[in-house]
Amino acid sequence: MTTESSPLTIAQLAELAGVSTATVSKVVNGRSEVSSETRAAVEELIRLHGYRRQRRRSTPTALVELVFHALEGDYPVEITKGVAQVAREHDLTVGISDLHRDHNAADAWIDGVLRRRPSGVIAVFSGLTETQHEQLTRREIPLVLLDPADAPGKNVPSVGAGNWNGGLTATRHLLELGHRRIAIITGPDSALSSRARLDGYRTALDMAGVPADPELIGRGDFLIEGGLAAAHRMLCLPDRPTAIFATNDGQAIGVYHAAHRLGLRIPDDLSVVGFDDLPSMRWAIPPLTTVRQPLSQMAAAATRMLLQLANGEELAQSRIELATELVVRDSTAPPPLS
Amino acid sequence: MTTESSPLTIAQLAELAGVSTATVSKVVNGRSEVSSETRAAVEELIRLHGYRRQRRRSTPTALVELVFHALEGDYPVEITKGVAQVAREHDLTVGISDLHRDHNAADAWIDGVLRRRPSGVIAVFSGLTETQHEQLTRREIPLVLLDPADAPGKNVPSVGAGNWNGGLTATRHLLELGHRRIAIITGPDSALSSRARLDGYRTALDMAGVPADPELIGRGDFLIEGGLAAAHRMLCLPDRPTAIFATNDGQAIGVYHAAHRLGLRIPDDLSVVGFDDLPSMRWAIPPLTTVRQPLSQMAAAATRMLLQLANGEELAQSRIELATELVVRDSTAPPPLS
Repeated sequence: MTTESSPLTIAQLAELAGVSTATVSKVVNGRSEVSSETRAAVEELIRLHGYRRQRRRSTPTALVELVFHALEGDYPVEITKGVAQVAREHDLTVGISDLHRDHNAADAWIDGVLRRRPSGVIAVFSGLTETQHEQLTRREIPLVLLDPADAPGKNVPSVGAGNWNGGLTATRHLLELGHRRIAIITGPDSALSSRARLDGYRTALDMAGVPADPELIGRGDFLIEGGLAAAHRMLCLPDRPTAIFATNDGQAIGVYHAAHRLGLRIPDDLSVVGFDDLPSMRWAIPPLTTVRQPLSQMAAAATRMLLQLANGEELAQSRIELATELVVRDSTAPPPLS
Repeated sequence: MTTESSPLTIAQLAELAGVSTATVSKVVNGRSEVSSETRAAVEELIRLHGYRRQRRRSTPTALVELVFHALEGDYPVEITKGVAQVAREHDLTVGISDLHRDHNAADAWIDGVLRRRPSGVIAVFSGLTETQHEQLTRREIPLVLLDPADAPGKNVPSVGAGNWNGGLTATRHLLELGHRRIAIITGPDSALSSRARLDGYRTALDMAGVPADPELIGRGDFLIEGGLAAAHRMLCLPDRPTAIFATNDGQAIGVYHAAHRLGLRIPDDLSVVGFDDLPSMRWAIPPLTTVRQPLSQMAAAATRMLLQLANGEELAQSRIELATELVVRDSTAPPPLS
């Protein structure tokens, strides 16, 4: 449905839509006071033909907008530190928004972005729709996805971690300690990072000749409560697992609670591996063995990509993956003698 | 040293300093390319006489700047959520900066603020100097201190919590459980919040007729490591405490580790009370009894004060204190029978 014609100016859009340039300008800049029919008509024209700003304003606001799926725990702090470091080098402000796990809130947020015209947007673990991506990129507001939940639409640059490899490494560590009843607690099915970690787990088992037991694949949601519930269920099985790969640190804390309630000691009775290596995990009792995701470095890389885009430069690659690394602490040990 | 004369315009400042208006403008707006002597001379004139913007720019940037002493743990997340909520209602961006515990960094940060001209600044647990406060307020950039480390200079509005009352309540809870050997781990001496919590502890003991034992007053730094070290020392005393009031949640985690290393069970052998009620404390093992500081509400209150100032309104009061509240969970119990 896209054409090869060059993008239209406000005057051209106004003529095609049969409205005033002031009205088109309002739609383009995300202002209200426009009927929803008119807005839809102009948006459709922009979708079909593209939109070209006649003259660029002197400069966009010296602002990088960082939007979080949810502001919870120390994950957003690690991300913010990485963005702030690069932003400071370039004298940019870091603006923070919180979607409160509510993707309907994203429309209102995007209207604000269009008004503010930041240098660019970094969306973290966000499930922004393709339409929402387009609303930004067609207004020349660069967008980079960080740790994206879904597969980014084509042409949307993104930064992630080596999730599959992390899943493989975590599971191999448990296999090498001698575990055979190794459970996993996944994140939400819609999260690609969770899918990749699960596939890494399956491959490690397969390569070791250990059959994957469907009973040992627990469904989680990347939250503590979900990890607790899934672990509790699996630890009550007659032939319970001797190790659990929790696929994120929050779920690992949930596993700690499930074990504690059942009187199981970590790592004597149960080994646990997390994923993320949030700073607080050094201070779990016992300190958590986990797969380190270099969140601050990922955030810094995303910010540098964004600044390249803001400067009109081409990206050498539109998807960057930083390596994960196993950090062995005290929550893993050989399985108990049975 | 201040005069009653009305504030000076850029033209008047330039005449008094014997430099061009362009140079004064650079100093006023925090730009570089001015000799340090000239900058000092102009700053001194502004300090003496005040500075009045000839014509206010159309509007200041629709930005609230939130500057943290340190971006660590979930304390900054709770603050950011409160600011973001109010900012969103007023269509303002929240900009984040991190001083990395380095107050020399504050000068560079202030230069950036003067260039950006936000609607206002919220400084969290910050030890900004009075000179730095003045640099902002004399440029008509409103400033509100949140959970201030030091006594705010006069005329600087601030929001805090009922620290003294929290210290009193935490200690009374332990006394009511039957504890008499009650230790405290303070924050840094320079932090007023720490002083107030310590005084509340002393008063509770005094009112209960329990003498305060200097050996049971440990010096901390509001960090996990400091809490661990202080707790370890006191738990190795011949007549060790049966309860520790850790005065913040991070130090309480340090106490958990010290107890774990010495084979002491919480709460059977040792009761622990924190301060803050960060969300992660529900998930400590055992869940932490702590004094809840309503961080998000404090942040929201600070943002509302800031917006009043930005609108040129008078504040009804320049210091707001929100109440703290004891949250009893599983880390406190009667002392062991001796």
